[in-house]
Amino acid sequence: MPQGSPPIIPDDGRSTRARRHAPLLVVHTGDMKGKTTAAFGLALRAWAAGLPVTVFQFVKSATWRTGEEAAFAALGRAFAATGEGAPVEWHVMGRGWSWSRGNATPEGEAAAREAARAGWAEVARRLAAGRDGMVVLDEFTYPLAWGWLDVAEVVATLRDRPGFQHVVVTGRRAPGALLDAADLAVEMTKITHPLDRGAKGQKGIEW
Amino acid sequence: MPQGSPPIIPDDGRSTRARRHAPLLVVHTGDMKGKTTAAFGLALRAWAAGLPVTVFQFVKSATWRTGEEAAFAALGRAFAATGEGAPVEWHVMGRGWSWSRGNATPEGEAAAREAARAGWAEVARRLAAGRDGMVVLDEFTYPLAWGWLDVAEVVATLRDRPGFQHVVVTGRRAPGALLDAADLAVEMTKITHPLDRGAKGQKGIEW
Repeated sequence: MPQGSPPIIPDDGRSTRARRHAPLLVVHTGDMKGKTTAAFGLALRAWAAGLPVTVFQFVKSATWRTGEEAAFAALGRAFAATGEGAPVEWHVMGRGWSWSRGNATPEGEAAAREAARAGWAEVARRLAAGRDGMVVLDEFTYPLAWGWLDVAEVVATLRDRPGFQHVVVTGRRAPGALLDAADLAVEMTKITHPLDRGAKGQKGIEW
Repeated sequence: MPQGSPPIIPDDGRSTRARRHAPLLVVHTGDMKGKTTAAFGLALRAWAAGLPVTVFQFVKSATWRTGEEAAFAALGRAFAATGEGAPVEWHVMGRGWSWSRGNATPEGEAAAREAARAGWAEVARRLAAGRDGMVVLDEFTYPLAWGWLDVAEVVATLRDRPGFQHVVVTGRRAPGALLDAADLAVEMTKITHPLDRGAKGQKGIEW
């Protein structure tokens, strides 16, 4: 929805148009559902606005395929067929390794940490190319919160990215330095959750 | 993402499978962004799971066309062409009238209130048909919060809906009775918002 007038007009010498078209760093954090779904809702808008969308999904499972991945694949094919929207790329960074720390051996955790670093290096290369319109880093807060990545280096890379690239980061426990750098940071908090009532996750809702 | 084990196992005689596959009433509320985007992220998952999606968007503008509407139209065409996903219907309830109360004349507000009631009657008929898999009522809290609709009647209709229909309601100021009836209620709260920095809304992010 269009927003109203901003509460302050910065004295930064930039035009309203330039401010309007600033690429944003967005963070969805908090303990409640909605972080990832809202990120992909933003990606829908980006796609429709003709902004190329690239998703890096930092997930536990090597084999998990989400509904959103299938839907964005269909949107990417729609673009290829008709030119409507924008191209879509989807990278599941968890394939072939696992974030899972709970039961990990020291060797397993070291391997996962190295894989996280390799995944981030790929993201950094992608951002440096400057050709996306929106980059989603889904569940990317975890390797930051666990100390697997250098938060200051990640924040500097995100902040100094070239081109016109919105970046959306999701996950619990977003580090303060990332929140400080964000243009838009939202916390999803719980009012009611079906697990409290003994329900379990289901296809079409949780994935 | 798959969830862990539920913290309690209800003694309600229902199987885990029955509980897993319960249709949910979901409410996204709060003053911050992410309510609508998260609803459409859920609708992406529903589409991919083969659940027919119907959206009723209760918006101010008669002519506003959102990026998410364009994206779901493409997904609906993808289903029609290939059978992947599910059918999509999109109804903009604001077309031809306005919610806007700020500058409304008494006559204008009365007309908007009647239009809201007609819109809800259409939603209720749709729910009674029982053939959707997910129904999104975007920005539907406003006519509830303004007293234009009978909250108790709306909640009873949502609670007693037939079939297997998830319902997702978005908007600020969700009434307590709606939250009480919800299986999942999320509040989006602000950490940082670009309007604080003098930025304005932009295509691909806000719509």
